[in-house]
Amino acid sequence: MFVLGIDPGLSRCGYGAVARRPGGLEARAGGVVRTDPAAPLPERLLLLHGELRAIVAELAPDAVVVERVLFQTNARTAMATGQAAGIALVAAAEAGCRVVQYSANEVKMAVVGYGSATKEQVQRMVAALLGLATPPKPPDVADALALAVCHLGASSVQRAVDAAVGAWP
Amino acid sequence: MFVLGIDPGLSRCGYGAVARRPGGLEARAGGVVRTDPAAPLPERLLLLHGELRAIVAELAPDAVVVERVLFQTNARTAMATGQAAGIALVAAAEAGCRVVQYSANEVKMAVVGYGSATKEQVQRMVAALLGLATPPKPPDVADALALAVCHLGASSVQRAVDAAVGAWP
Repeated sequence: MFVLGIDPGLSRCGYGAVARRPGGLEARAGGVVRTDPAAPLPERLLLLHGELRAIVAELAPDAVVVERVLFQTNARTAMATGQAAGIALVAAAEAGCRVVQYSANEVKMAVVGYGSATKEQVQRMVAALLGLATPPKPPDVADALALAVCHLGASSVQRAVDAAVGAWP
Repeated sequence: MFVLGIDPGLSRCGYGAVARRPGGLEARAGGVVRTDPAAPLPERLLLLHGELRAIVAELAPDAVVVERVLFQTNARTAMATGQAAGIALVAAAEAGCRVVQYSANEVKMAVVGYGSATKEQVQRMVAALLGLATPPKPPDVADALALAVCHLGASSVQRAVDAAVGAWP
């Protein structure tokens, strides 16, 4: 199974693809789509849509996982992030992919084991699960990979955690 | 000048097109795109995107006006509405249209003259400005026409208000 995670954002939208292989998980691709904060909103959303569509078409994942955006303290950022998430959902649905959403807390629960884990803990655990020496950078990529790992399921995650526990600092 | 207004919404998304003609404004088209609340979010956004893209292509407006969604008491609705607005912005930008956003208060200011006008006042004024015997229904269409009227400018609105003032109840 091959899963593309998308960490939605308008200025920086992270993506990361993870495949399940015998014995564990493997990162296959990752990157960030950036749009110019000085550009008009419709142009930024259109650019994001085109880039995400191209990424989904190129990677052809079995499923696309998009973080469910909840309201944060900064309402202005939450709206832009939510719109970016909507664009990601459309790009995935257009390609006929199965589309799933998880909240940040669900990802933390699946990857680290508790919902109040820090971003750094998630990133280090993602690196350990994927056999990477250091957490992927920028953090948007690590967050996108974490979404993909989350979707690859609690059971396979648990097996990988057992295998990778030695790498946990 | 021919302007398409879009009142964003996920369950019901209103649209209305208004042209400036000698002596006033004229409604040219209007309707509502509905998506099934029971369907998955990615499918609903994809359907909305396709419908709005077809409407923009068919009407070929000079400008598309989309309501700027601000946070309301119901955060869940605001996010869905904001995502629908993002989809509308992309559909308009894809077609190469000029895209403009106004808040509900800006529309009320432009159409009725004060930002705390009621929905009913806006709808009756839209009917008067467009020479319609009754406010367009459903209200989503009237709200979309109001966005288009707003964009057609304070000066022409003022002229039309002067001409239509007799129709004001």
